[in-house]
Formats: sequence, C-alpha cells, structure tokens
Amino acid sequence: MIKDNLTMLTDFYELTMMQGYFKNNINETVVFDVFYRDNPSGGGYAICAGLAQVIEYIETLHFTESDLDYLRSLKVFDEDFLTYLKNFKFTGDIYAIPEGSVIFPMEPILKVIAPIIEAQFIETAILTIINHQCLIATKASRVVYAADGDPVMEFGLRRAQGPDAGILGARAAVIGGCVGTSNVLSAKLYDIPALGTHGHSWIMSFEDELTAFRKYAEIYKDNVTLLVDTYDTLRSGVPNAIKVFQELKDSGKLPQKHGIRLDSGDLAYLSKKARKMLDAAGFTDATITASSDLDEYLINSLKAQGAQINVWGVGTKLITSQDCPSFGGVYKLAAIKRNGEFIPKIKLSENPVKITNPGNKKIYRIYEKDTYKVKADLITLADEEYTSDKPLLLFDPNATWKKTYLEPDSYILREMLVPIFKEGELVYQSPSVMEIRAYCLKEQDTLWEEARRLVNPHNVYVDLSNKLYQIKTELLNSFTYHTK
Amino acid sequence: MIKDNLTMLTDFYELTMMQGYFKNNINETVVFDVFYRDNPSGGGYAICAGLAQVIEYIETLHFTESDLDYLRSLKVFDEDFLTYLKNFKFTGDIYAIPEGSVIFPMEPILKVIAPIIEAQFIETAILTIINHQCLIATKASRVVYAADGDPVMEFGLRRAQGPDAGILGARAAVIGGCVGTSNVLSAKLYDIPALGTHGHSWIMSFEDELTAFRKYAEIYKDNVTLLVDTYDTLRSGVPNAIKVFQELKDSGKLPQKHGIRLDSGDLAYLSKKARKMLDAAGFTDATITASSDLDEYLINSLKAQGAQINVWGVGTKLITSQDCPSFGGVYKLAAIKRNGEFIPKIKLSENPVKITNPGNKKIYRIYEKDTYKVKADLITLADEEYTSDKPLLLFDPNATWKKTYLEPDSYILREMLVPIFKEGELVYQSPSVMEIRAYCLKEQDTLWEEARRLVNPHNVYVDLSNKLYQIKTELLNSFTYHTK
Repeated sequence: MIKDNLTMLTDFYELTMMQGYFKNNINETVVFDVFYRDNPSGGGYAICAGLAQVIEYIETLHFTESDLDYLRSLKVFDEDFLTYLKNFKFTGDIYAIPEGSVIFPMEPILKVIAPIIEAQFIETAILTIINHQCLIATKASRVVYAADGDPVMEFGLRRAQGPDAGILGARAAVIGGCVGTSNVLSAKLYDIPALGTHGHSWIMSFEDELTAFRKYAEIYKDNVTLLVDTYDTLRSGVPNAIKVFQELKDSGKLPQKHGIRLDSGDLAYLSKKARKMLDAAGFTDATITASSDLDEYLINSLKAQGAQINVWGVGTKLITSQDCPSFGGVYKLAAIKRNGEFIPKIKLSENPVKITNPGNKKIYRIYEKDTYKVKADLITLADEEYTSDKPLLLFDPNATWKKTYLEPDSYILREMLVPIFKEGELVYQSPSVMEIRAYCLKEQDTLWEEARRLVNPHNVYVDLSNKLYQIKTELLNSFTYHTK
Repeated sequence: MIKDNLTMLTDFYELTMMQGYFKNNINETVVFDVFYRDNPSGGGYAICAGLAQVIEYIETLHFTESDLDYLRSLKVFDEDFLTYLKNFKFTGDIYAIPEGSVIFPMEPILKVIAPIIEAQFIETAILTIINHQCLIATKASRVVYAADGDPVMEFGLRRAQGPDAGILGARAAVIGGCVGTSNVLSAKLYDIPALGTHGHSWIMSFEDELTAFRKYAEIYKDNVTLLVDTYDTLRSGVPNAIKVFQELKDSGKLPQKHGIRLDSGDLAYLSKKARKMLDAAGFTDATITASSDLDEYLINSLKAQGAQINVWGVGTKLITSQDCPSFGGVYKLAAIKRNGEFIPKIKLSENPVKITNPGNKKIYRIYEKDTYKVKADLITLADEEYTSDKPLLLFDPNATWKKTYLEPDSYILREMLVPIFKEGELVYQSPSVMEIRAYCLKEQDTLWEEARRLVNPHNVYVDLSNKLYQIKTELLNSFTYHTK
C-alpha cells in the first residue's frame, strides 16, 4: 500500500507491445483518446476527475533499477529495450477536460499525442486513475443532487476498495459536491474538511449512555453531535441527548453546532419522532444527521416521506458507487502521424456503439446564450475553427436527419480540451480540490434539470462536425470485411 | 497515490474518540472483533485475505511531525494528546484467521486485544484492508469455481477503484485462485505471474492484421497468443492467425503456447466456430482465450452452451466485485477488561442480526473426520477447551431446538484464530501469495459442493458454545429498554 513509484502500474501487454514497437522501429506520433460510452448509474452526465493524479503519475514516471531487474528476470525483454526503459520519460502532449467539468459519452475527455511507445505505455495507469475518480465524483454529484441543498459528508473509508479508493475516492466525492470526508489522510493530502464525532464504542466504553454523552460534550465544546442508536434511539438515545443539551443550555454552553446522529433503524420514522422530541424540548436548531446505507435513491425516498434529516453521511454506496462500481473509460488509437499529417484510425466492432471516432479531435461545448445551459457538444477535427457569429447546423450522427439550426450569436462556444503537457513539459496548474468543487457545482448548473434527473434523464447531444462525420463514414466503408 | 505513511488512513472520529478516552483516563484493555454478516454475492462462504497488509500497517504505524502539525491545525486536539500521539505505537495482541481460509458470517476473523485508545484507532484501516481483499478473494474463488479447472487470469487494473484496488485486488484475486495478473506492479510486489500479450492498438499500428500477427510472433517466440477481433474475428482474425501458425509450423518454430484471444462478440458462437477452424487446420492444441465482461455467471452460462474456451481473462467484474462491490466487515467492541477479567459487551439493535456476540472469543472449526469437510464452526469463549475425544452437541443459536450430536472421535477440531501480534511484537510470518493460493484451494476443498454453489447455496452453521450463548442471552435480557 505504501509505494514510491507507480511506473510499473501497467498491464503487462503494454510492455510487450512497447518492446514490439521498439524492435520494429515503430515510433510514429499517434493520438490516443480516453472516452467512455455510458453514463454511470443510468444518469445523464458524468463528472470529470482524476487529472491531478494523472499529472503526478506522468511527472514521476521512471523505471528504477529494481523495476528493470524485475523485468529482466521475466526473460521476455531484451537488454536493448531495458536500456531504452532506463531512460524512459514522457515527451508528448496531453490535453484534457478540466476536473469538475460535466462530460458526456463518446467525447475525448483526455487526449494523448506522443510517440506510440510512450503513448501506449501510459494507457493503463491513466485509465485506472480517470475511471475511478470520474466514477466517484459522478456518484457524489447524484447523491448531493438528491440531498437538495443539505450537506453530504463522505463516510466510506472502511468499505472502500483499498486505501487509494478511500483517499482518492474522498477527493472525488468532494469534487462531486460533498462538504468533506471522515478520511483524515485524504483531508490532509487534499486540504478538504475532516468530519466526524464518535461511534458506538465510545458509548459502550462508559457505564451508561448519558455519561458517555456528557463526557463527549465536555471535550468537544464546539460541536456536540451525539450518536443516539447504541441502545434504543427513542427511549434512550434522544432523551439522553436532550438532557445533555439542556444541561449545556442551562450553563450557557450550548454550541451552535449540536444535534443527534441516527445510524440504524427506519430513518424516516426515527427522524420525525426525534425532531418532535427535540422541538418540544426547545432544541429546534439541533440538527439530525443520518448515516446508514444511504445513496441517492434512498435519500430521495426519505425526503419524499418527509424525513426530518438535515445532514447526510454517505458511506459504502458512495465510495464504491455500489449500483455501478466501474466507469467504462477506454483508451483508443485515433490517428497516426505520417509525413506530418494525422491519418485517422478506427476500431471496428460488431457492436456499432463500440466503433470509435477517428482522427485528432477537439470538443466545442455549445451553450444557449440566454440561459448558459448546455445545448450540445460538438466533436470536430483539431484544425477546424468554429465561431459563434455564424449559423451552426447540428445533426445527430446516429440519425443524420435529426437536425438543429442555431442562429448566429444565439449560442456560446467553449473549447473543452485544454493543454496539460506540451512536449513532456507540464503547462497546467491544477486548482485546489475545494476550487474544483466550486467549479463543479457551477458546471452542474449548466445542465437542464431534465439531464440531472436521477432516473431516465434526457441525454445531452454529442454531435460530430460534418468533416469528422465524413471521415468516419469513409473509413467504415473502406473495410472489405463485412460485419454482420 | 504515492504515500509513505498510512497512519492517517483513519476516520476522523477515531481521533476524537481517542482524545476523549485520553482526557478521561480511560485506557482499559478491550477486545474488538472484526466480523461480517453476509457472504458476498449471495454465496455460501468468503475467503479471508488482507492480513499481510494489516501487519504492514501495524508495523509502520507512527505519526510524523507533518501529521501532528496537520492535526494541530484543526484546532480540535490539545497538546497533551498530540504529545501522546507522537509516541504512539501498537502494544496489544492481534489474532486472525490465516489468509486464504474459508470463513463464515458472524465469526471473528480478526481480534484485537489492546488498550482502548490503540484498539479504537486501528479500526478504520484494518476494515479498509480486510474488507477489500476478502471481497476480491471471494469473488475470484467464485469465478475460478465457475471456470471449472480452466486457468483464470486477473485483467482488471484499468477498471479498478484506484491504484491500490488494482494492486491489492490482483493479490487477493490470486489468493482466491487466479493464475496470475496483467498488473505488472502487483506481479512484482507479490511475486505472482505477470500475464498478457497485445491489444488492438498493436494491430492497428501496422498496415494490416497479418503483418501485425507476424511481427508479434517474430518477437514473442515462446507464446504466440493473437488477438483476433480487431476487424472481423472469423473472416479476418482467425484465418490470419491460422496463416501465422502454419508459417511457424512449416519452419519448425510453432511454440507449445499458441492460440487466439477473443475480446468481443458472442463468445460461445465465436469460440465454437474458431475451434472448428483451428482444428480443421490442424491446430488442435491452440488455446482459445476469452475476455469480455466476464464473471462467474457468464462463464457458467458459456460453459453450459459448450463454448470452446480454455483460458479466461476476467477484468472489471472481478476487480470491482461488480454485483456486490463491498464486504460488510465491521469492528465491534466485545469485552472490556476490568480487574483482570473480560466483561462481555454487546451492541443492541432493532435488527436482531445486527446484535453482536459478546466476550473474548475463539473459533473451533469442526471437520467431519472421514471426509475432512466442514461440519460447522463453533464460537466459544477464549478460555473454553474442547477436545474431539468427547461427544459434542451443537445447536443453532437462532433456533436452539435444532441440535446436532457428534460422536467422540468422529470429528476433528481446529482453532482458527492464530496469534499475529503479542504485546505489540509480530509473532507471525506471512506465507507468500502463491503459498496462500495453494492453501486456499485446499481450503475450498473442505467445503461441501452445496456450500460452493454460486446461487442459493447451503449455509455452513456457525454455532455458539453453551456458555457463550448463556452470556449473550443474559446480556440481552439485562437491558431495560425494549426493542420493538
């Protein structure tokens, strides 16, 4: 778990392919795209995250002597190739959509332009990083959407798929909108709020619940949030919490932040009962925090039932994205540079949705001028220039008769891919996680409500430029093999 | 992702509780149990994994100056407590079930006996590690079971939930029975086989598929496994592979390891067609490897349809345990030592299955002598001694009238929890991952087929000793609050 080098975090076949290119003197500059095909959890969008860790990975790439000794021991790699690896570094360009952006299927969210040996090698680690953080940031944004303005805390470390899943997952969850995390290491590393109070063992280590509550309130004077479900929520926990709040109030020491936490049972019923008890005792400002197998669907349902919950602690189902625990980002060859020109390449498939978009591309996001809501994304070739003072005719690449005409100056264009590395040099400064979080909240505001709906949302259009569509069609028609 | 210290990998509330104990001079020795309630994926068992990383974590525990500075900056912790943390180390005992063992719900798979401040602190990291690796080892054992003797390769790194999920997930997958992994870093760290050949981009970087195959075979003379689905599996990929195999055969260079890999399409149909084509060309030893969204259910179904697949590459759904992406291990206070005696503690719940087993406990596994199959597990207090030369009456703790009588010498007893740390000193040497894998395969043989069934299996009994059952019942009855 403790590791000082992620260079070897790669699939073995990347290394065998690299050696193959090396031995065949193949090292043309190529374009690889990272894109995904389906929004997680059946949603209408995803949230981009992980770029800062991709940067860290690229910047620290190097094979140590120990790595080379290991590879030598496999008796698959020759000395000339191992010597090449010894001096290996990334010398190419990387473009990416900034972290926190809303993204849509089939568009390149990260683009590598580099000699094929280098571009091939970095495939696996980039996908591991991007797939994980996009997944959790997207899930978090859904949970936060369901919480409808209430704070959501990330509480999942103990059920995360290993330490990094907890650490980077908390980072991604905050990008997606969580207010903070229980994970202290993540909070330290990424300068995000560390949150939490006490657990059942605190209560059980005292002779009785009331003493445990009192002792807690004595030490943590600024935030007295008491876990009330160790023995019996309504008969013991809530009455004891009220007793302690009253004692604090009587001595003028009740802090602004005080309340109870429910961690089991029927959260709708218990929160409504607890709210009445707290209010009747005059503690109308006491918050009710809930945590117990929550996700966006349950939060939605609890809200619909009138649950009196103000703060949500979401663990397992957020940190693992339980209903959809993988983000299907792929890394596909899109073009090979020959004689100074990018020759588009396509990957065929018997399944039409698995056919890739060829060429060296960029993305324009098209906003409606009046509302600043996203109208569509337009994928074009990198050398195509669009300006918003001209009319724009969009068409659906899967049903080309479906067209949309945009009047000049009725829309705003934004290029989504920004340069991150140029000839191996970092040219981008990542914002802080809390800055990315603020940006991400604004990004989500650019979506129509219909696209944010948790179930069966409207899909935002991702269109191709006419030129890109023509190239794709020609490439598809050029194959002599028939796909059934 | 690169980190030299996991001490801060903890939930914030562990630290606030620790300071609370510290300030109240509470530091009695306690017993915490790690256990889980439900087998993953509805199976009949789980596989224990992660202990080596728990050991690494405990051995490297220490707060750095940077950690203490960070905690100080939160303005929640006092200097006396931070000074305590500066000198913090684990001084207690840990017992655990060895990695690779089959385990069942409700039994302690790891037990911590330590002063409460220490025992409380290590909760989160232990759960993160154990929950993740038990999950993936269990999933792998199910996939390997479905493959019914065929080798299964772990191919999931790019869809893992972050780097550790890939690295430790591959470790756990090999423990559960995979023959190796595509993950080079994991292969290096844990001395497990690194596996893989080439991807679609290799094929696409040459002018045509046949050239790409030939070039691959020129370099990797010992294992010519060719990916045949880049353009058209049956019209292009398989015929080109056969052409290359024939050329190698003609020049006397066809290695023993040769074959094709299918990565898309209908794997049953394609593998049967490809098998016929390979056989007709005389390549009856050519293997057919398949990889494409596989899991235990699909492998089972493909086998039932007579798919001609010899080797399975399993990615996303194994490395994330897609249908059940979390293992619900918990860490619960079971006893507090007072006046030299362990006082049993219980956590109540409105949900009876969430009620814990109190006391300082151990586990006997009971094997049927003739078959060496698992009859049941028996949880007893740590100071109870059972020997197999006496009759044994087992009863179901949830239905005490269900009894089983075992004749003397008809059964074998094995204590499952072994000492790992004693007074903070490591007293256990972890086997290598490949040794654990071999042990795990034997362990799975101790299960009746009925308990290994993928769907709706028989549940192995986990019983309580009479003494433990009495203590639990008395504790439950001693509470004055009524649970509904």
